[in-house]
Amino acid sequence: MASDSTTRTTTRFWKFVRRPAGNEQATESTWSIDSQALTALEAGELLIVTLFVSVDPYLRIQMSTDNTWQAPASENEPQLSYAIGRVIQSTEPDAFPIGCCVRTYSGWTEYAKVNASDVQRIDQSTTDPLPLQHYLGALGMVGRTAWWGVENTLRPKPRETVVVTGAAGAVGSLVVQLCKKRGCRVVAVAGSDDKCRALRDELGADATLNYKCDAIDWNHIDALQAVCPDGIDCFWDNTGGYVSDAVFRLLNVHSRVAICGQISVYDSGLNADSPAMGPRLLYLLIYKRALVQGILQRDATPEVDALHQREAAAWIRDGSLHDRFTIIDGFDNIPTAFNKMMNGQNTGMYAWLVVACFDA
Amino acid sequence: MASDSTTRTTTRFWKFVRRPAGNEQATESTWSIDSQALTALEAGELLIVTLFVSVDPYLRIQMSTDNTWQAPASENEPQLSYAIGRVIQSTEPDAFPIGCCVRTYSGWTEYAKVNASDVQRIDQSTTDPLPLQHYLGALGMVGRTAWWGVENTLRPKPRETVVVTGAAGAVGSLVVQLCKKRGCRVVAVAGSDDKCRALRDELGADATLNYKCDAIDWNHIDALQAVCPDGIDCFWDNTGGYVSDAVFRLLNVHSRVAICGQISVYDSGLNADSPAMGPRLLYLLIYKRALVQGILQRDATPEVDALHQREAAAWIRDGSLHDRFTIIDGFDNIPTAFNKMMNGQNTGMYAWLVVACFDA
Repeated sequence: MASDSTTRTTTRFWKFVRRPAGNEQATESTWSIDSQALTALEAGELLIVTLFVSVDPYLRIQMSTDNTWQAPASENEPQLSYAIGRVIQSTEPDAFPIGCCVRTYSGWTEYAKVNASDVQRIDQSTTDPLPLQHYLGALGMVGRTAWWGVENTLRPKPRETVVVTGAAGAVGSLVVQLCKKRGCRVVAVAGSDDKCRALRDELGADATLNYKCDAIDWNHIDALQAVCPDGIDCFWDNTGGYVSDAVFRLLNVHSRVAICGQISVYDSGLNADSPAMGPRLLYLLIYKRALVQGILQRDATPEVDALHQREAAAWIRDGSLHDRFTIIDGFDNIPTAFNKMMNGQNTGMYAWLVVACFDA
Repeated sequence: MASDSTTRTTTRFWKFVRRPAGNEQATESTWSIDSQALTALEAGELLIVTLFVSVDPYLRIQMSTDNTWQAPASENEPQLSYAIGRVIQSTEPDAFPIGCCVRTYSGWTEYAKVNASDVQRIDQSTTDPLPLQHYLGALGMVGRTAWWGVENTLRPKPRETVVVTGAAGAVGSLVVQLCKKRGCRVVAVAGSDDKCRALRDELGADATLNYKCDAIDWNHIDALQAVCPDGIDCFWDNTGGYVSDAVFRLLNVHSRVAICGQISVYDSGLNADSPAMGPRLLYLLIYKRALVQGILQRDATPEVDALHQREAAAWIRDGSLHDRFTIIDGFDNIPTAFNKMMNGQNTGMYAWLVVACFDA
């Protein structure tokens, strides 16, 4: 077995210990740090040190016992998530030599034993390797989500109006840019003037709305209508709630809606016994023959995957796609990062990442 | 100009005179009878006597000023709707001889001048002509709606579970039968035990739910889950409201939902300032990658139209498709029929029709 000088016998990891009740946010005490032994590798296994983990809103859905996801996360189990790791021991040294980097779903752990068949090696052999964090961003799950939803569901045509909520988030910022690349008029909705400015100045959004702005009365569609004078052809929804309610009233005939997230209800509305309430909107779809589709990147076809990898890598390299990150230092800060992300407290752009370890 | 002995110079018609306020039902006084002159036919025109008019829920949507339809119905204008008429004067005697029958959109009027280009002649030249009312039912707009939504949106596969609300209505009863023909397990939801019995015994529904049954607590999904043990793959929604809320919680991965009507909100929920409220459900679509689509028969493709006409006519003739009607006598009773239909007071099956005139 190939190995480096590190002989790890234990690892710290974050354990999901206290399920938020129906209407609660996750807090620092939702998780606690634990440690466990790292037994010797068996055939096909790798030992990795975690370099980056991503904190994503879908993790909050998984905490709900209301059966909306594959299965609810179990308490007292390690918190899983996408991560980038470096291989420090390998039973597959040809395919995964010591020092190579991989994308895994190993979660919030300093070290992890993983099956080689469950990870994707990140090719850094080119003369112009991309920074690793892009493989959690535009080239990773986040980018795959954007490309899949845009290509399969939104199918934007040049000059159509596209509205994106959560537009300054990891997926939203990519959707804004991808739809601009496709020739659309893009209206970006985000939660601060700083985010809106960046969406216009850096990402090319044609118009923005700060949904937290006190001057907007979301009981009426006026503010949204002012920036969507020709109605809305495509809607990428990351947030739900009153912004989405207004969008539904402005959908055009044969419009398309991708439901990627509904972050506004994750903390309070997932309990079937006390659901978040809103106006009944389904009747608005009838005359407009609008299509609404929930999306997950796992459904992506090989054709869309190839398009995604080709376009995203080329556009990162030529500087025309911004794939920025808010990086928070330190494994101990992962829950804090998650909670700040859920509250929209990233003053920078776009995804939240946590540097878990530097001692690889 | 060809003409029969009838020389009509005036007609009575129902005029839409009082728009229901946001939360009101239509009443007898929503319309009033008026009369108008019938001027001489110009080239291309026909004079018809109305034999049947259909009263359909979408007429209630059109009364709302909230812009959810093409345009709201104007007050003091004739009430339009689909109708079957017999030609009594014709400027196109080759294509439309005196005595032939046509389907029109001429509305609640005893006589009407129509453009030949706006009507469809009903072929009664076969040795086995079908009763005229089928051309407002399974062979008409109602049937076209069912076939289009099933073929384009539901795409049911054999053994999938299909739930239909408003299942005893004009469109619903056809969807139940069409999905049974396609090999599905069909759960029909209707508003009385009589309707449920007919849906099982006559239309072949595998299970039924009387949504008005006091024993069902629609705050929970138990009753629906009991009749959908394998979840729900296809949902045809005519009603919306709390039944639909429960259905959304039971949708399977990659399920399809056709929004054909939302009759439960038409009387109270179309006002943007005081919308009907319900639980926010869009997040349920994400993991399930469910597709929700508003449908109108006007989008039907020639391929689906041909399939519809071929299958519906064959199945009516061989007795395997039930296309029954509640026929109310008398032009003066049209508003009463409309309001009974909106309140689900058809003790028989399925669509409401009104015999407008017999003196053709």
